[in-house]
Amino acid sequence: MKKTLAQLAQHVGGKVKGNADIEISSVATLQNATEADISFLANPKYTNALQTTKAGAVIVGQDMDAPVPLLICEDPYYAFTQISVLFHGYRQHKNVGISPKADISKTAKIGAGCIINNFASICDGAVIGDNVVIYPGVFVGDNVKVGDNCILYPNAVIYDGCRLGNNVIIHANTTIGKDGYGFAPHKGKFYKIPQIGRVVIEDDVEIGANTCIQRGTLEDTIIGTGCKLGDLIDIGHGVKIGPHCLLVGHLAIAGSTTIGHHCVIAAQAGIVGHIKIGNFVKIGAQAGVINDVPDDQSVVGAPAIDVSKARRAYAMIENLPEMKKTIRRIEKQIEKGK
Amino acid sequence: MKKTLAQLAQHVGGKVKGNADIEISSVATLQNATEADISFLANPKYTNALQTTKAGAVIVGQDMDAPVPLLICEDPYYAFTQISVLFHGYRQHKNVGISPKADISKTAKIGAGCIINNFASICDGAVIGDNVVIYPGVFVGDNVKVGDNCILYPNAVIYDGCRLGNNVIIHANTTIGKDGYGFAPHKGKFYKIPQIGRVVIEDDVEIGANTCIQRGTLEDTIIGTGCKLGDLIDIGHGVKIGPHCLLVGHLAIAGSTTIGHHCVIAAQAGIVGHIKIGNFVKIGAQAGVINDVPDDQSVVGAPAIDVSKARRAYAMIENLPEMKKTIRRIEKQIEKGK
Amino acid sequence: MKKTLAQLAQHVGGKVKGNADIEISSVATLQNATEADISFLANPKYTNALQTTKAGAVIVGQDMDAPVPLLICEDPYYAFTQISVLFHGYRQHKNVGISPKADISKTAKIGAGCIINNFASICDGAVIGDNVVIYPGVFVGDNVKVGDNCILYPNAVIYDGCRLGNNVIIHANTTIGKDGYGFAPHKGKFYKIPQIGRVVIEDDVEIGANTCIQRGTLEDTIIGTGCKLGDLIDIGHGVKIGPHCLLVGHLAIAGSTTIGHHCVIAAQAGIVGHIKIGNFVKIGAQAGVINDVPDDQSVVGAPAIDVSKARRAYAMIENLPEMKKTIRRIEKQIEKGK
Repeated sequence: MKKTLAQLAQHVGGKVKGNADIEISSVATLQNATEADISFLANPKYTNALQTTKAGAVIVGQDMDAPVPLLICEDPYYAFTQISVLFHGYRQHKNVGISPKADISKTAKIGAGCIINNFASICDGAVIGDNVVIYPGVFVGDNVKVGDNCILYPNAVIYDGCRLGNNVIIHANTTIGKDGYGFAPHKGKFYKIPQIGRVVIEDDVEIGANTCIQRGTLEDTIIGTGCKLGDLIDIGHGVKIGPHCLLVGHLAIAGSTTIGHHCVIAAQAGIVGHIKIGNFVKIGAQAGVINDVPDDQSVVGAPAIDVSKARRAYAMIENLPEMKKTIRRIEKQIEKGK
Repeated sequence: MKKTLAQLAQHVGGKVKGNADIEISSVATLQNATEADISFLANPKYTNALQTTKAGAVIVGQDMDAPVPLLICEDPYYAFTQISVLFHGYRQHKNVGISPKADISKTAKIGAGCIINNFASICDGAVIGDNVVIYPGVFVGDNVKVGDNCILYPNAVIYDGCRLGNNVIIHANTTIGKDGYGFAPHKGKFYKIPQIGRVVIEDDVEIGANTCIQRGTLEDTIIGTGCKLGDLIDIGHGVKIGPHCLLVGHLAIAGSTTIGHHCVIAAQAGIVGHIKIGNFVKIGAQAGVINDVPDDQSVVGAPAIDVSKARRAYAMIENLPEMKKTIRRIEKQIEKGK
Repeated sequence: MKKTLAQLAQHVGGKVKGNADIEISSVATLQNATEADISFLANPKYTNALQTTKAGAVIVGQDMDAPVPLLICEDPYYAFTQISVLFHGYRQHKNVGISPKADISKTAKIGAGCIINNFASICDGAVIGDNVVIYPGVFVGDNVKVGDNCILYPNAVIYDGCRLGNNVIIHANTTIGKDGYGFAPHKGKFYKIPQIGRVVIEDDVEIGANTCIQRGTLEDTIIGTGCKLGDLIDIGHGVKIGPHCLLVGHLAIAGSTTIGHHCVIAAQAGIVGHIKIGNFVKIGAQAGVINDVPDDQSVVGAPAIDVSKARRAYAMIENLPEMKKTIRRIEKQIEKGK
């Protein structure tokens, strides 16, 4: 498929500076683009690359001087996404219908247009919406409810009773609804606490691979509408995450913590249990959050503190030996001065 | 099922303060309980909630003033667990017997009362005890031995030769007995070292989802009786963990480290290889343990230090810029004073 | 199998000090070896154990006094590896041929001598080399290319289009080629960016269990020849890792970062996106790398700094309360002195 730059501009609601007739057939980075590619500039760090790129055109956020045709629009990264979808679309799933080699309970209900592959298990009382794609090795437990247009990638496991909204994507080898980590100590042993909550995943959520979301001990664990979770994430029992949060990857949130909407939690961050994170909060990579965080705050470091202080404070650890030396020198000067 | 408060008190060996005839049918948090629920107060942080809860009754550790009937007993959290088990029990497993769609070697031995689901693989020479539940997609390698009453959740993988005791639970997508990470460098390349140890999991152990326990290079990796491991845990080759430890989740222990009994290792902690952790040790979340830890010590921070010092010391990182300013001011004052 | 010490010395190109006729049949640690075992001394920390070991012989790097026969060679750890391979070899895989219970697309090409177990899925257009072993529950997506002599352990998942070289080992429950974590924000929601890159794994790579390697957004994610990755590792989209790196385990590398050759990245380290790590770089456990690292540098700590400074600087955090006291005392002395 080829599109002129003019057509692309129309598609994303932008305008062209330069030759609007050039034909584009794919997307690429500024560095690796060829004449047939459109690229984008969203990060000012790469502004120099605009001068040397071999791209056929570049999407930018504002008018600027460049040796290539520009597609100027409000939100270059989003426009790039729209154009990438136009050229490449998303993964297509082979329509195998309902495989006779899948194991589907007679009491399960399967919606219209579903694809259920070999070696998938759909247990008693499960309800699968329309146009759901279930890959091999997926396990959908008793009474699980899966909304419309969901995709469950190979070997994803959904324990009994969990709820998935519409348009939910669960990647390979991920576990949803595993028992919460709850054990009561008594005379030197630990006793398993029944985990009677569920995991409820709202609409438009994508969950990465090799991630685990625990069910709640007493109340449900909730992943809000539009949240995007990465890989190797560990979500504790009864955690509640508001809509439209980004949880990047390889991070952990302990039980019963509540997170607002539109938060960003970077890789390898950890959040203790039973605290409250506000809305629009940003938590840096490897941060260790041990207290409530109010709306709009950005924290980094372990223990996590406001980003305005943190970068400088943590960078100064390097200077500690030097500081100690200075203090000793001062002490000696004072001693002499006496 | 309904029980009077008197009956529940008898069940857990406690006594009632207030109306012993009220009927209870479930358990809930102080905040969300209704009249039909019993709740519990184990964490003093929630004492205020006792005054406003709508619970029918609350389990407490000592007599206190409250507007609701109380069930007073020595160990409220354990009593709550007993009552939750009474009302809700644990997950029931559909009795499918031995599915003809499972793949079971002719040389494997399967005990009485086992449930083996579709798409499970039991390899040559494996020995499965009585009343074991094996979910779809589970792989039990050659010569693995599984004790009685074990539960292996979907897609759990047990490599060849490993040993599971009785009453062991392995959650979904977890890997037991994968080769230890051992490579000998030689002239710029790395050569794989045969991993001839096994993983031995003793009785009453529960292991979370998406966790990996490596087999030993020369000796076995051992998980002691009654240990409870969470999700996304990475246990190195030849690690030996004593009985009744809690390993919360998303943590890593490097090869050949030995851990005593009754230790608690919090989320995202890391422990280097070849060290010795004593008994009753507590290791905080995100701690980085690089030296032996004696019995009964609690450590936090990275590098990990005694908790009595650590909380204050790590909190002071925030003040480093201020400290540096103060030192500079002092230096100037001394300079002037000369 | 038994070998005399003389035969073992010949096998590894070393020489014997002491009785060359003793017979050895296995390998063991200095501490647990018996007369029939050969052990090794590679870490000076264990030199004392050489005096008390019950091993039949010990591999050492140089002549030394010891009460046991010695096998002296240049690289004791590598020699030990060679001898362990001689006695124990690597895991043997049952030759089930191509199981009729595997699901293999008619358009897939399978090389000679392959073993494909039950419940494995090989999708359309996949090309599998010679002598490949595919365990149950493995998923090989559309148009994936797998080289010769690869081993894919149970429930490993390879998404469409990825490339595996020769002699690649992928352990259980690992996910290769899952979509990169890429979402464009627009008016409070996040939109999925098509991930059109692949994962390319070069020859002789071993990848641990429960690990996830994301495919690239626009360009391929590359794991270089001879790299050895551990368990629970999270590799972002478009990361490029040079040949012969060790990535120990439970670590994360964010998108588009480039890593040179012969690097060692220890457990729980994190590396931010879009940076460049040189060749022969060492990154310590739990390090947080936020800037480029030049060739040959070793960094530890979060934020990561040169190891020569870091160990001392981070250890001094413990002394911060003491430092603050000293500064206050100085201030008071100056105040008095005025």
